[in-house]
Amino acid sequence: MALDYDLSPFFHPKSVCLVGATNNPTKWGFSVLHNLLMGGYAGNVYPVNLKGEDILGMKSYPSIRDLPETPDLAMVCVPNHAVLGVIEDLAAKGGKAAFVISSGFSEAGEEEKQMEREMARKAKEAGLIIGGPNGQGLVSTRCKLFCLMSGAYNKPGPISIVSQSGNVGGTILFSAYHHGFGIGKFVSSGNEAFVKLHDYIRYFGEDPETSVVLVYIENLKEGPAFLDACREVVPKKPVIVLRGGKTEEGASAARSHTGAMATSTEIFDAACRQVGILQVRDLREMFNVAIALAHQPLPAGDRVGILTLGGGWGVLAADAVSQYGLRLPKLPAKIMEEYSAFLPPFWSKNNPVDLVATRELGTTARSLEILARWEGVDALMMLGLGYGTRSVHLSSKFSPFKDNPMLKMVADFVLQEDMSTAEAIVRLVREVNKPFAVCSDAVLGSRLSESAPILHLENHDILVHATPNDGAATLRAMWQYAQIRAR
Amino acid sequence: MALDYDLSPFFHPKSVCLVGATNNPTKWGFSVLHNLLMGGYAGNVYPVNLKGEDILGMKSYPSIRDLPETPDLAMVCVPNHAVLGVIEDLAAKGGKAAFVISSGFSEAGEEEKQMEREMARKAKEAGLIIGGPNGQGLVSTRCKLFCLMSGAYNKPGPISIVSQSGNVGGTILFSAYHHGFGIGKFVSSGNEAFVKLHDYIRYFGEDPETSVVLVYIENLKEGPAFLDACREVVPKKPVIVLRGGKTEEGASAARSHTGAMATSTEIFDAACRQVGILQVRDLREMFNVAIALAHQPLPAGDRVGILTLGGGWGVLAADAVSQYGLRLPKLPAKIMEEYSAFLPPFWSKNNPVDLVATRELGTTARSLEILARWEGVDALMMLGLGYGTRSVHLSSKFSPFKDNPMLKMVADFVLQEDMSTAEAIVRLVREVNKPFAVCSDAVLGSRLSESAPILHLENHDILVHATPNDGAATLRAMWQYAQIRAR
Repeated sequence: MALDYDLSPFFHPKSVCLVGATNNPTKWGFSVLHNLLMGGYAGNVYPVNLKGEDILGMKSYPSIRDLPETPDLAMVCVPNHAVLGVIEDLAAKGGKAAFVISSGFSEAGEEEKQMEREMARKAKEAGLIIGGPNGQGLVSTRCKLFCLMSGAYNKPGPISIVSQSGNVGGTILFSAYHHGFGIGKFVSSGNEAFVKLHDYIRYFGEDPETSVVLVYIENLKEGPAFLDACREVVPKKPVIVLRGGKTEEGASAARSHTGAMATSTEIFDAACRQVGILQVRDLREMFNVAIALAHQPLPAGDRVGILTLGGGWGVLAADAVSQYGLRLPKLPAKIMEEYSAFLPPFWSKNNPVDLVATRELGTTARSLEILARWEGVDALMMLGLGYGTRSVHLSSKFSPFKDNPMLKMVADFVLQEDMSTAEAIVRLVREVNKPFAVCSDAVLGSRLSESAPILHLENHDILVHATPNDGAATLRAMWQYAQIRAR
Repeated sequence: MALDYDLSPFFHPKSVCLVGATNNPTKWGFSVLHNLLMGGYAGNVYPVNLKGEDILGMKSYPSIRDLPETPDLAMVCVPNHAVLGVIEDLAAKGGKAAFVISSGFSEAGEEEKQMEREMARKAKEAGLIIGGPNGQGLVSTRCKLFCLMSGAYNKPGPISIVSQSGNVGGTILFSAYHHGFGIGKFVSSGNEAFVKLHDYIRYFGEDPETSVVLVYIENLKEGPAFLDACREVVPKKPVIVLRGGKTEEGASAARSHTGAMATSTEIFDAACRQVGILQVRDLREMFNVAIALAHQPLPAGDRVGILTLGGGWGVLAADAVSQYGLRLPKLPAKIMEEYSAFLPPFWSKNNPVDLVATRELGTTARSLEILARWEGVDALMMLGLGYGTRSVHLSSKFSPFKDNPMLKMVADFVLQEDMSTAEAIVRLVREVNKPFAVCSDAVLGSRLSESAPILHLENHDILVHATPNDGAATLRAMWQYAQIRAR
């Protein structure tokens, strides 16, 4: 289905002008230009400043009308009452798209709401599209476009985001950045005077560079259009929604924030289920599920095989898998025999497979491979990766015997064992075509998430969860989407 | 009430012998001795090794009977069939306490179960106490005693832990270590052939160095004694319980792990509520709630004041507070006026207090102080700390204008503002005597949890949560315990 508006000037502009550019770093007109330059955007950039003074060492222009070319995209950071004039200038210059960062529109009062309507009307008349107002800007990583008030400088990736809150979206951008995962496009949609939530969703749905769509909703102005857009996109790619304002208290906070109208949570939830939208409970789950859906195969069923390097974690993981509505199949005799051939006699003889302690290099990887290749499971969960590495880090720092050659040998064994497990996971995800939820308590004590096996996984786009509950929530969402896709 | 057994030889021994000490680093008899020495224990340490060879450069003894003094504590790492003899030697030497790390007892089979019973009987006869068998060991930070198969080297602190899983306990030890929080005592209680879960709980209850008791339960052998112990401790200090094996699948995994019997979840939950035990849903919540209860004042009610540096986070926090059963009081005119006197006109005029953007140093701290001192709230939640710091880190790394003096000035402002907020929180927790749940998405993207304001809080024993849900869960648990204490 054709889109109502072509949003490519927002995400693939060949030139950008920044209206309201200034040398004063306390103003958004500075930050946005600064971030655009810092992000490495390769198109033409034109600062527009009333006084025409040089901005960040660049020549500026007193008005859009004075620019040497028609900019594909105008980022607008002037005071609210000056925005209308900017739109007129852009229209006169033959421009096609503006993104208005300026606030003080419908979120501020009745008079300002009128101004917002007038702006949208003018734009429609002139054949312009407008993003915002009161939005924090947009990102398009493939053209290194970071037109944002504050944000990370993400590498390209398959996840695109539309957020009705700039900082909530920023949380996802920063988290992805620090864990090294890529992002495709991002927009902080603001008041959506013209281009609406559903327009972005439909655009991401058609975008060949996007395979997962994230949506943060606070103010659902056009429910039916939103559901229609999702209905279109969901069969092709997952739409993951986090909704703020579910409770009376949250909705009241949203009214102050974006002037949101209350939406019944029951109705919203039912509609999501019907359309196949994946709702998540918080930012952590949104991030985890997005990364997993973007980079791992969908499970063909709800049966989970768990491998653990410690009994207690296995018990908590079995609880989590069951509480999240997934199944834990029993090991058949054939698989039991395979394990008993090389594991010490006191292994768990159960799913979770508890290795207890390994004494031969590669035992964990070999055990994981048996479980992963077994046709009785559709998804895998792995617990305890990095625990050994972490112990070794401590003893290599503090041990009075750190030069003892035997101790060094054991430390090397532990590090190699953890690393060979990480490498096996990266290989197996592809070979067996099943998703892996890796959970490591090394991620809870965040400082040491820099452990080599965890970094290895993240470098191969496999997120490591902190707890079995987090991992089970991810697998459940993947199974939900697999079922949605199948229908 | 007097304890059934004096457990001080476990946690305050003046001398420790390690039976089964070896120079082979793949054996527990090496790891435990190594960790004991590495931890810096100052009492006498005696390796016991059949062959009497030097272990890790120390003289060893062929048997406990040959030791130059009676050890307060014997750590036992010999094969299962040799343990009984060790207990006899210890009894003959006049010893009082042994902790048996060796496995292969009741968790292994019927014959081994008999052996375990016999061991307990012998110990009782000889007036000895025994920890384990099949436990990973114990920790007592004040005497730098780290008799553990694997673990962190925690600084002293008020949280003590008894865990029916060594690795689950280890997760808490490592997390506390990496975040810089102290731990008091830890025991991996194993099969509890002699000293039981409730003995440790009662001991921690009496221990003046412990103010919060954490319990991981997988195998509740003596339910009534456990509840009695908790009933005794709960009025004095919180008892936080994480239970593994809540589901059929989890219970089945626990049977393989520790031979646990199933306990009805409904009955267990009802008993916990009645006794005032705080149950937590996972390791993250256990850790968060423990740190908060150990280091922050209890709330006098359920009213939460939220301050946010971004609208969307505030909306999610309002939802979280409400979903966790806490209240979000409206701001009275008096407080509104206080804010309006110095905040820009577009502040939220609502709880959550959304500052939108600050332009004067100390605005966040000042706003937080007003909210914290208002008698209408019992607890505080703060969102967005560290977001600015994180942006500045990025631009100081990548900006082509990083030497621009104006930009440096703004960066300094942002860093100072974040830091002054962190300092205000540390001060206010004490001054207003209300708990603060600080939530920062900087903790979600774990790599940058090293940001200065977050480190400042952790250095002052204030944990920073990753999401508003995490923060609300902590505040709810604190309010639950405040009510339990009050009754």
